[in-house]
Amino acid sequence: MSDAKELESNNSMRLGEIGLNNFAPYLMNRIMGRYNVSLREEMAALGLTTPKMRALAVLSVIDGILLRELAVFAVVELSTLSRALDALEADGLVRCQTDTSDGRARRVCIADAGREAFDSLWPHMSENYERMFVGIEREERRAFVGTLQKMLANIRKHDF
Amino acid sequence: MSDAKELESNNSMRLGEIGLNNFAPYLMNRIMGRYNVSLREEMAALGLTTPKMRALAVLSVIDGILLRELAVFAVVELSTLSRALDALEADGLVRCQTDTSDGRARRVCIADAGREAFDSLWPHMSENYERMFVGIEREERRAFVGTLQKMLANIRKHDF
Repeated sequence: MSDAKELESNNSMRLGEIGLNNFAPYLMNRIMGRYNVSLREEMAALGLTTPKMRALAVLSVIDGILLRELAVFAVVELSTLSRALDALEADGLVRCQTDTSDGRARRVCIADAGREAFDSLWPHMSENYERMFVGIEREERRAFVGTLQKMLANIRKHDF
Repeated sequence: MSDAKELESNNSMRLGEIGLNNFAPYLMNRIMGRYNVSLREEMAALGLTTPKMRALAVLSVIDGILLRELAVFAVVELSTLSRALDALEADGLVRCQTDTSDGRARRVCIADAGREAFDSLWPHMSENYERMFVGIEREERRAFVGTLQKMLANIRKHDF
């Protein structure tokens, strides 16, 4: 069956026909739900919430980005992210500054204490990440990540 | 490199070394974030929220399950799900009943109006789902879903 034909026929299939266990968004939700729950305890011990943790994770890789870029990378709504950053700044984990070229834009930098907080969370994230892939060989992992990258390119609204 | 060896070496890698774009949980979060946002308008038009929509989606496939099972399948916390079901029941979209064998357990059935609500949302879900997979051939999709199934089996707490 050609890809276009398959798309067409899938479009007329109902969820019950596809089956929950073959429906990628369902499986991804289940997996990310467990991943987030399994980190909750460690986050709470560090005084972090999911939005705070995601902001620190992104900043640990790409520091000094604009607030609106951080919202996209961290998948946190702008208003929620703003509140999380206010709290992180009050705790000395990030520093926010006005962008030099655009006075209305806010740039976010991770502070040493923020890097330390993320560094103590990372072993747990890494362990949960590895647990997902137990028994899944290197090539299969690589193919899986490659498919995810194509999917994100298909549906993202931003060029990054 | 053996799988065990790779796990070990990954465990000592930092997120910046793996790279956000190679880190499966990051990619999955970005993708599911867009998927959920893209459904928000259609859900709102039907008076649905994400927890309500997920409950109806699951019930459209597996009807008459226990509340605690529905919470696992729908990836919604029990307290949030309870509130969502109260609202769905008040709107006549589901019916809740006490389990015949366990008086403390609550069973949830989808009502005709609930099925209709989900049926009018499904074309949008299906369209968003297909958009994710544009340009991804049938075999690659199948392999991707297969990897997701293994990942869920690795990390789930329940036998379903």
